[in-house]
Amino acid sequence: MTTQPDAERVARVALTWLFEPGNRVVWELVRQVGAVEALGVLLGKGLPDGRLRATVAARLAAGDPRRFAETALRRGGRLGARLVVPSDPEWPARVDDLATLELDTGGRIDQDTRPPLCFWVRGDPPLGETLARSVAIVGARAASSYGVHVAGDMAHSLAERGWTVVSGGAFGVDAAAHRGAIVAGGRTVAVLACGVERPYPVGNTAMFGQVLEQGLIVSEWPLGAEPLRHRFLVRNRVIAAATAGTVVVEAAARSGATQTMGRVLALNRPAMVVPGPVTSAMSVGCHAILRANPYAHVVTSADDVLEDVGPIGEYLQETPRGADRERDGLDEESSLVIEALPARGASTPEEIAAATGLGVRAVLRRLSFLELAGLVVRRGEGVELAGIAGRTKPFTPGKAP
Amino acid sequence: MTTQPDAERVARVALTWLFEPGNRVVWELVRQVGAVEALGVLLGKGLPDGRLRATVAARLAAGDPRRFAETALRRGGRLGARLVVPSDPEWPARVDDLATLELDTGGRIDQDTRPPLCFWVRGDPPLGETLARSVAIVGARAASSYGVHVAGDMAHSLAERGWTVVSGGAFGVDAAAHRGAIVAGGRTVAVLACGVERPYPVGNTAMFGQVLEQGLIVSEWPLGAEPLRHRFLVRNRVIAAATAGTVVVEAAARSGATQTMGRVLALNRPAMVVPGPVTSAMSVGCHAILRANPYAHVVTSADDVLEDVGPIGEYLQETPRGADRERDGLDEESSLVIEALPARGASTPEEIAAATGLGVRAVLRRLSFLELAGLVVRRGEGVELAGIAGRTKPFTPGKAP
Repeated sequence: MTTQPDAERVARVALTWLFEPGNRVVWELVRQVGAVEALGVLLGKGLPDGRLRATVAARLAAGDPRRFAETALRRGGRLGARLVVPSDPEWPARVDDLATLELDTGGRIDQDTRPPLCFWVRGDPPLGETLARSVAIVGARAASSYGVHVAGDMAHSLAERGWTVVSGGAFGVDAAAHRGAIVAGGRTVAVLACGVERPYPVGNTAMFGQVLEQGLIVSEWPLGAEPLRHRFLVRNRVIAAATAGTVVVEAAARSGATQTMGRVLALNRPAMVVPGPVTSAMSVGCHAILRANPYAHVVTSADDVLEDVGPIGEYLQETPRGADRERDGLDEESSLVIEALPARGASTPEEIAAATGLGVRAVLRRLSFLELAGLVVRRGEGVELAGIAGRTKPFTPGKAP
Repeated sequence: MTTQPDAERVARVALTWLFEPGNRVVWELVRQVGAVEALGVLLGKGLPDGRLRATVAARLAAGDPRRFAETALRRGGRLGARLVVPSDPEWPARVDDLATLELDTGGRIDQDTRPPLCFWVRGDPPLGETLARSVAIVGARAASSYGVHVAGDMAHSLAERGWTVVSGGAFGVDAAAHRGAIVAGGRTVAVLACGVERPYPVGNTAMFGQVLEQGLIVSEWPLGAEPLRHRFLVRNRVIAAATAGTVVVEAAARSGATQTMGRVLALNRPAMVVPGPVTSAMSVGCHAILRANPYAHVVTSADDVLEDVGPIGEYLQETPRGADRERDGLDEESSLVIEALPARGASTPEEIAAATGLGVRAVLRRLSFLELAGLVVRRGEGVELAGIAGRTKPFTPGKAP
């Protein structure tokens, strides 16, 4: 290891020890000046009075962030837990789409939804490759036998077909999903809201051992972090962002699943819901999501899930070439519209109409189609090409109109 | 009875004996020249060679249409079955919305979807008033105990709150819906695909007796008509059109429910689906409808149904005054758009933009909202005020966008 990556890794771990992952201000600072300098700024005397400074001061009373990070990295090495940062080849690029989440003044998308600064990873396969073709299956801890059956069956079928099953390691639906993938001999990833060295809940310890044999246990939180209640909601954004789509199997009324699905939809990923008997309390949340979100989609089987997330392999093509191929299938008007859009920045429908010679109405019709196909995204009154900082976003088909 | 209504009634019954209800050509002819003259044209020597003439010739071999109709009307009088025609005060105006159904070249909306020419009615309450505030609950004959339970429960709650429950009188879900309404002491209407004097199936005879005590048995077909297979699909369009919304409770794959829901959606009425276990064959059709139609909506209870069909009483206001009140709540741009539309005939968004001084985009946005609110309907490339021949269409909210 050279000194530079070490400093980078130390800084990122120190930052997640100082602030909870997903923090908007910290992520923005790291984006602008890099992790090492961001840590320097936050620990420096120049930090203005305010919540940031108060948080830092409180944490500093508990110890030195850099020393904590160095110790954690050494301990991780001994325990077989590696740190993955954005500059690593195995970084799962899809999670960076969290940077596109608009703040929702209605409060549905809260402040702490920025991309992770790093991942702690246990298990052999490379993280990015493992998540490239993945589906999340999440749901109630107090699942019924119906939920456990459906989650296990769906995970089994998806794993058999080469898809990684991602979940949160909890009792009920999560555990059924992990186990279904394990039994199929496929890959599964448990995304935790605590340190990876002691997966929570302890009752699933044997299962976590099997997960490690065939997949990964990952977390944004440093070793030793407790599974605090608010961390599960922060963790859920990673499950939504790291996968090609999310399936909810059983959810009680007002459960975390509603919030997760809000983020999945905001990320323009397939938000899939398994219905159940209307007489079952464990399906109330599922049906509420379906009633509230026209773009949430019923799925009844792995076939339905694969239909919604797109053909196998599509998500492996996270290159402009893949997007070019998507565009090849477009009709002439849609191609004109796409070509009229600048590489960066938004255009209004009127500007596109002027550039293409099409009527505004034709442009609006094409834009709806292109938005649905994941090729353009709305920005205020205009639209822009889908993709972040030059990286082409994978094709994420929504629900048919 | 005066002579004129008699001739009108005789002609309409004769026409439904000559041709199956819903026939596009016959309905169009009646609309243009009236029923009496339409019958004269169809029975006259001037009819050109073709399918119409062949159909008439085949039926004439079986008897004289006018004599059949006169006999049927006399027999109906003895059996307590009255004929209701569009000029009668109790005509259920909402069924005339079937005239707005566009022919779907994809074949989803078939040729035989024009409004009924008449209804045979058994039971005391006036037909139109009984259907004004009504919801259809339909579904599988081979319903599971889950489907029977949910249909009965939902019908019971709706009937308790003063809504009429409409169904097709079949075994399974239909019968459960009728029974739920009966037990609640509410109103229920069985819409049959055969003569009202011998409701089909015979196994539900006791139930039909209870329906008659609290509601109506109705049919477009004349007394004596057999419940032929293809008639059920023709009948289903009336169930879709006569009610404020339709709920499907359990449907097998490729069932008639899919076709019914296609028509409900084409009529811009709430198309509601009760989900069930994905492991149940009797919910496969329900989930397929939800996956295929973004505007089909999950409902889990009578509360959900009432939320989708709108506040109680809204459908009672089938007068221009009611529509005026709907319009009172509109924002300024929407009001401008509504006022720019002619009383009859369609306008294009560009014409509306020119008339209002609004931008085309603003007009399109307002039109989407107004269409959703049931105040305007699309006609080819343009839109027109909702309502047929001056009659104002009731407010039929679709799914929120």
